[in-house]
Amino acid sequence: MAKVYLALIHHPVYNKNKEVVSTCITGVDLHDIARSGLTYGIKKYFVVNPMPAQLAFAERIVGCWRKEASFVHNWTRAEAFKLVELASDLDEVIKKLKDPVIVATSAKPKGSVKFNKIRELIKKSKKPVILLFGTGWGMTDELLQKADHILEPIKGNSKYNHLSVRSAVAIVLDRILGGN
Amino acid sequence: MAKVYLALIHHPVYNKNKEVVSTCITGVDLHDIARSGLTYGIKKYFVVNPMPAQLAFAERIVGCWRKEASFVHNWTRAEAFKLVELASDLDEVIKKLKDPVIVATSAKPKGSVKFNKIRELIKKSKKPVILLFGTGWGMTDELLQKADHILEPIKGNSKYNHLSVRSAVAIVLDRILGGN
Repeated sequence: MAKVYLALIHHPVYNKNKEVVSTCITGVDLHDIARSGLTYGIKKYFVVNPMPAQLAFAERIVGCWRKEASFVHNWTRAEAFKLVELASDLDEVIKKLKDPVIVATSAKPKGSVKFNKIRELIKKSKKPVILLFGTGWGMTDELLQKADHILEPIKGNSKYNHLSVRSAVAIVLDRILGGN
Repeated sequence: MAKVYLALIHHPVYNKNKEVVSTCITGVDLHDIARSGLTYGIKKYFVVNPMPAQLAFAERIVGCWRKEASFVHNWTRAEAFKLVELASDLDEVIKKLKDPVIVATSAKPKGSVKFNKIRELIKKSKKPVILLFGTGWGMTDELLQKADHILEPIKGNSKYNHLSVRSAVAIVLDRILGGN
């Protein structure tokens, strides 16, 4: 089975006017996605943001949860935060993982690869697999072109399709790695 | 198909010392769970908390998203917030729904009902179905006894099982109501 990694992309993403922007890192994205990541056996959760002040903000939170006292206070959070690694751009992450299979996600109809196909790919791949999740109004088309596969959008039970990225990560991990 | 409702329980729940407490309402629980709820066709998302100050806090947030300006600013959030209804206890909610089937969830091994069974139940039931999610260290055993069914815990891909309630809601809704 392939090692699976996850990256949360804060740049380059669109804002609601389809301008290319950098979004902010949020505390709850760090917590929730780290906890989901650890539940589903993710090896590393890369938080990708080019802005030094944003990385410094995230570093403070991550640093706090790496302290011994945090393991005593709430070990489940502290354990999850071990997965978090900060990076200033995706290329740096790709280089570190040495030629991973890149699987992008999008709530928009950009991809059509079935969840089961990625589940199978992970079972068989000898290369690591990295899952990309966008913030804001989604990753730019240029960034999506770097992906080897783009997953089909999650379908719920209505026409509304505006999950938080935290919920989308949880559902995607469950669909491709879930155990029951 | 049954109408499906959801309740987030802030009391009675355990804290980490297994004392019965009331937890606080958080903004991100309102947002994320409302958005997941609307994606999966939930009819109403009840936020259950006995503390008047907590309900007043939530009412301010909900009230803000009910304003016309919020629909202009970010209609996807405003639309999701239409689902939110505040309640001071679960009995009030049960009474309002007139004899619903109560399905509780727990991350602990309290229940063994398979996700597919609840999916089938929802397809066939003429009564409404309400899904209960706990906060803190989980709903009290006494409260769980009110449930007609307790779902098996979500299994990921590791021994770690400490999802945020927001992630757990997303995964449970996807497993019992998801469309692809």
